[in-house]
Amino acid sequence: MRDVQGDADYRKIPIKQVGIRELRWPVLLKDKTRGVQPSVAKVSMAVDLPHNIRGTHMSRFVESLQTLEAISPESLERVLDALKERLEAQKAFLTLQFPYFIAKEAPVSGQRSLLDIECVYRAQKADAMRLRMEVAVPIHTLCPCSKEISAYGAHNQRATAKVEVETNGFVWIEELVQLAETGGSTAIYPLLKRPDEKWVTEKAFENPRFVEDAAREIAIRLESHPRIAWYRVSVDSIESIHNHNAFACIEKDWEDAKP
Amino acid sequence: MRDVQGDADYRKIPIKQVGIRELRWPVLLKDKTRGVQPSVAKVSMAVDLPHNIRGTHMSRFVESLQTLEAISPESLERVLDALKERLEAQKAFLTLQFPYFIAKEAPVSGQRSLLDIECVYRAQKADAMRLRMEVAVPIHTLCPCSKEISAYGAHNQRATAKVEVETNGFVWIEELVQLAETGGSTAIYPLLKRPDEKWVTEKAFENPRFVEDAAREIAIRLESHPRIAWYRVSVDSIESIHNHNAFACIEKDWEDAKP
Amino acid sequence: MRDVQGDADYRKIPIKQVGIRELRWPVLLKDKTRGVQPSVAKVSMAVDLPHNIRGTHMSRFVESLQTLEAISPESLERVLDALKERLEAQKAFLTLQFPYFIAKEAPVSGQRSLLDIECVYRAQKADAMRLRMEVAVPIHTLCPCSKEISAYGAHNQRATAKVEVETNGFVWIEELVQLAETGGSTAIYPLLKRPDEKWVTEKAFENPRFVEDAAREIAIRLESHPRIAWYRVSVDSIESIHNHNAFACIEKDWEDAKP
Amino acid sequence: MRDVQGDADYRKIPIKQVGIRELRWPVLLKDKTRGVQPSVAKVSMAVDLPHNIRGTHMSRFVESLQTLEAISPESLERVLDALKERLEAQKAFLTLQFPYFIAKEAPVSGQRSLLDIECVYRAQKADAMRLRMEVAVPIHTLCPCSKEISAYGAHNQRATAKVEVETNGFVWIEELVQLAETGGSTAIYPLLKRPDEKWVTEKAFENPRFVEDAAREIAIRLESHPRIAWYRVSVDSIESIHNHNAFACIEKDWEDAKP
Repeated sequence: MRDVQGDADYRKIPIKQVGIRELRWPVLLKDKTRGVQPSVAKVSMAVDLPHNIRGTHMSRFVESLQTLEAISPESLERVLDALKERLEAQKAFLTLQFPYFIAKEAPVSGQRSLLDIECVYRAQKADAMRLRMEVAVPIHTLCPCSKEISAYGAHNQRATAKVEVETNGFVWIEELVQLAETGGSTAIYPLLKRPDEKWVTEKAFENPRFVEDAAREIAIRLESHPRIAWYRVSVDSIESIHNHNAFACIEKDWEDAKP
Repeated sequence: MRDVQGDADYRKIPIKQVGIRELRWPVLLKDKTRGVQPSVAKVSMAVDLPHNIRGTHMSRFVESLQTLEAISPESLERVLDALKERLEAQKAFLTLQFPYFIAKEAPVSGQRSLLDIECVYRAQKADAMRLRMEVAVPIHTLCPCSKEISAYGAHNQRATAKVEVETNGFVWIEELVQLAETGGSTAIYPLLKRPDEKWVTEKAFENPRFVEDAAREIAIRLESHPRIAWYRVSVDSIESIHNHNAFACIEKDWEDAKP
Repeated sequence: MRDVQGDADYRKIPIKQVGIRELRWPVLLKDKTRGVQPSVAKVSMAVDLPHNIRGTHMSRFVESLQTLEAISPESLERVLDALKERLEAQKAFLTLQFPYFIAKEAPVSGQRSLLDIECVYRAQKADAMRLRMEVAVPIHTLCPCSKEISAYGAHNQRATAKVEVETNGFVWIEELVQLAETGGSTAIYPLLKRPDEKWVTEKAFENPRFVEDAAREIAIRLESHPRIAWYRVSVDSIESIHNHNAFACIEKDWEDAKP
Repeated sequence: MRDVQGDADYRKIPIKQVGIRELRWPVLLKDKTRGVQPSVAKVSMAVDLPHNIRGTHMSRFVESLQTLEAISPESLERVLDALKERLEAQKAFLTLQFPYFIAKEAPVSGQRSLLDIECVYRAQKADAMRLRMEVAVPIHTLCPCSKEISAYGAHNQRATAKVEVETNGFVWIEELVQLAETGGSTAIYPLLKRPDEKWVTEKAFENPRFVEDAAREIAIRLESHPRIAWYRVSVDSIESIHNHNAFACIEKDWEDAKP
C-alpha cells in the first residue's frame, strides 16, 4: 500500500507540532510515601514536521506510548527519544495531565484521607529535554478587606493555586503541593471532624489573604528554592460573594531562570 | 434520490427520542424590565419514531427552529407542533439552555450590574404541552456548625441553587431567581463597593445556612406559590474547606403536583 | 461542641438526598482479563434526611468511602449499608464515574492497545440494593443516506453509544462494551496500522448505520440478553457535516423489566 | 473604612496580572451583513501591580466593563485605558470569548441557516494596544491515506480549525472564517437537504486532507494576506476511527511578523 503520508510536499510550510491529543492512558507515578501510585492521564504527543514531507505517522505515537514505564524524567525522555527516532523528527513533545492523590492528616483529629491534585507534566526534547511540572492545589482564602471592614465574619472561599516549575534537580509533587498550600489562609482537607473544622475556621480568620498575597507567598518560597529554576504561580479564587473569580499571576522572567 | 430514512423497518423497536443536540442558536427572551433580552442557547430537539420506520429527517429540526420567535410558552409550542407535523410524530421535545442576565443593585451603594443566571426550558408535547423551567442561581452559604464551634469567623462559600418547576400559569425568570436567593445566607452580587461588602459579610454571618437549610427555605416558598404546580430544588455548595461539594435535593412528588 | 446538624427542624420538609459530590477517589475495578484494574472515580454519595432533623454529618460520607475495596456489587452494598447505619438513614445513594481500559486488537495486524471507556455505577439501597451500570462506548457510524445518494464516498464520524442497564446477575463491563460496539458501522480502535485502516474503512462502507440503526441494533441484543432486566440506549453522533450532534434513544419501559 | 488593598507591600514581588475571570457579560459585535449581532461573552480582565502595593481594587474591573459599547478595536482600547487609569496600572488586559453566528447557504439548495463560531479577542495595552483575534471554525476532513488504500469509502470527521491572528488593519470575523474553511475537505453547514448532502459527500471525497494539509492550506492564505501580521493555525480532528484527536499546528515566528 502506498505511504501517502510520506509524499513530498511543495507548500514550503514546516509544521511546528503534529500529533495526537485527548488520548487517555493508565499511568504509574512515583509516590513519595507509597513508592508508586496508579492514575489515568490525558495525553498529548507531537513532533515537528519539515516543510517537504506531507504527513506524520499517527499510529506510531500510540505505539511509542506503550513503552512508557512508571513516570519519571528518565522514562519521559525515553518516549521523546523514541518519537524522534521513529518519526524522524528534530523535536518531540509529550504532555500528561492526571490526578494525583496526597494523603493528608486532619490538623487536630489526625484523621487521614486523600486529597486529589490535578497535575501536568510537559516534556519536550530537541537536543536536551526540558520538563515542566504543574500542580493545581486547592487552598482556602479569607478576604482581608472583608475582615477589616466588618463587625464580624469575613467572606472566604475555595481557591486553586496553580504552580508550574522547571527544575534543575528532582522535586516531588508532594513538595510542590506543600509549597502551594503556604499561599492560603489555610490548607484544604478532604476529611475534617468538628475540632478540625474549628481549627481551620479560626486559622483562616487569623490569616487573611488576598489572591495577590497568596501568589506572593508562594512566589517567595519558589524564588528561594534551590532546585527550582523557573516558575509561574497563578491563584484563582472562587469568590463567594460574586459569580466570577479573582486571580493573580506571577511569573519568573525566563532570562532570570537559575541555571 | 431515494429516501433511505423513509425505509420500512422490521426490527420492531420504537425509538423514544431521535433528533439533534449541541446545536447553538441565538434567542430572544422575555425580560421583565426591558421587554426582551438576547442570548445564545444550546438546543436539543427530538421526536419519537414508530417501530416500522427506519429514520427521521434531521434537516427538518433545524428548519423548524428557524421559525422560533421570542421565547414564550406559545412560541415553544408552535415549534413543537411544527416538529410533530413535519416529522409525522406523536411526541416532540425541545430543550433550550441559555444564560440570562438580571440587573442587580448592590445592597448599600445601590450600584447596578448584571448577574448571569443559567436557565433551561424543557418543553414536550404529545397531546398537551408540558413545560419545565430551570434556573441555576448563585448564592452564598455560611456554615452554621463552623460559626457555632469557632471562637471567630465561619467558613462560607459560593453555592448554586437550582430550581426546576412546572407551573400552572406564567412565572418570570426574575421571580424564580428571587425565590432561589432566599435560600442563601445572602444573595450574590456582581458588583460590591466597600460598604456593600461589609453589609454582605455581616448579613451572611447573622444568617448561617447549611445546604439542607437553603434547600428547605426555597422549598417552603415554592410549596406555597400559587402558580407552581411541581418543583425540584437542588443546592450545591462549593465547600471552601474541602475539594468537593456538599448538596441537598428536595423534590415534590409528582402525584402531589397542583393541578 | 454543640452538634448543630443534630438540631430539631420544624419546617416539615424531608430531604430526598443530601451528601457530597465531585469528590475524586482512587478505585480498583474487576477486570475480566487481568483480575483487577486501577482507575480514578468521581464520586457522589447521599442519604435521605427526615423532616425533623436539621442536617446530616458530611464527614461520615468520606469516612465510609475509605472502607471501599475493589468495586463489586457486594463492596458497593457494604458502603451503602455503612451510610445507612452511620447516618441513621432509610436510603443511601452511591455513584461512581470512572474511565476503564479495554485491551483491543487491531482487526488485521492484531496489534494491541488500550481503549478508554467512560463508566458509571449508580447504586442505591432502601431495603434491597439496586445497581445501574452505564458504559459510554465510542463507535463509528457511516451515513446510509449519504452513501445511497452520492456517486462515491459517504460521510462518517465518531459516535458514542451509551448503554445503561440493570441486571439480574453479574455482567462484565467488557460484555456491555462488545454489545455496544455491534451498533456501529464498525468498532473504534486505539491503534490501527495501514491494513487495519483499510479493513475498518471498507467494513464501515459496507455497513452503513443511522443513529437510529445503531440504537436499535444494540437494543435488540439487550432485549434478548438473559441477565439484563432493564436498559436504556442512547447513541450520539458527532456529525461530520454539521456542527451539532444527531442522537437516538431507546428505553425499556420499567414495567416490562425482567424480574 | 480602611483601604486594605492600598497597604504597602514589602515582599518585593511585582504581579504580572491581577483581576477577574469567568465573568459572563452580554456583548454586541460588528456583523458584516447585519450591522450588529448580540452575543454573550466570558470575560477576563487584569492589570499589572507593582511590588510595593498589596492589592488591586476588584470592583473597578466590573465598573469599567459597563462602559463597553459594541465591540471594536476602539471600544476595547477605551476599556483598557479606563483600567489603566482607574487602577493606576502600567498594563491592562482584556479577553472576551463568545459565540458568533454566520449565515451560511447550503451549496445546492441555497437554504440558509446559522453556523456558530467560537471567537476570542485578546487585547492588552502598555503603550500601544495589541489585539489578537481567534476563531474556531468547524470543518470536515477526509483522510487521504484511508481513501488511497481502501477499495471504497474513506474515513472522515468533523475537525476544528483554530486561527489566531494579529492584524495591521481591520479584518472581519467572516473573513477569518472563510479563510479557515479553505483548510477542510469541505466546509460544514448547519442545514443540508439531500442534494446538498450529496454535493458535500462527493466534494470531500474529491478533496482529501490530512490535518497537516488543512493547517498548511490555511497558513498559505494567512501568509499572503496583506492585513495579517502574525498568525497561529491549529487543526484538531475528531478522528472517526479512534477515540482521540489528531492535530497539527503552524505558527508564524514573531520575529517575522509583518509590521
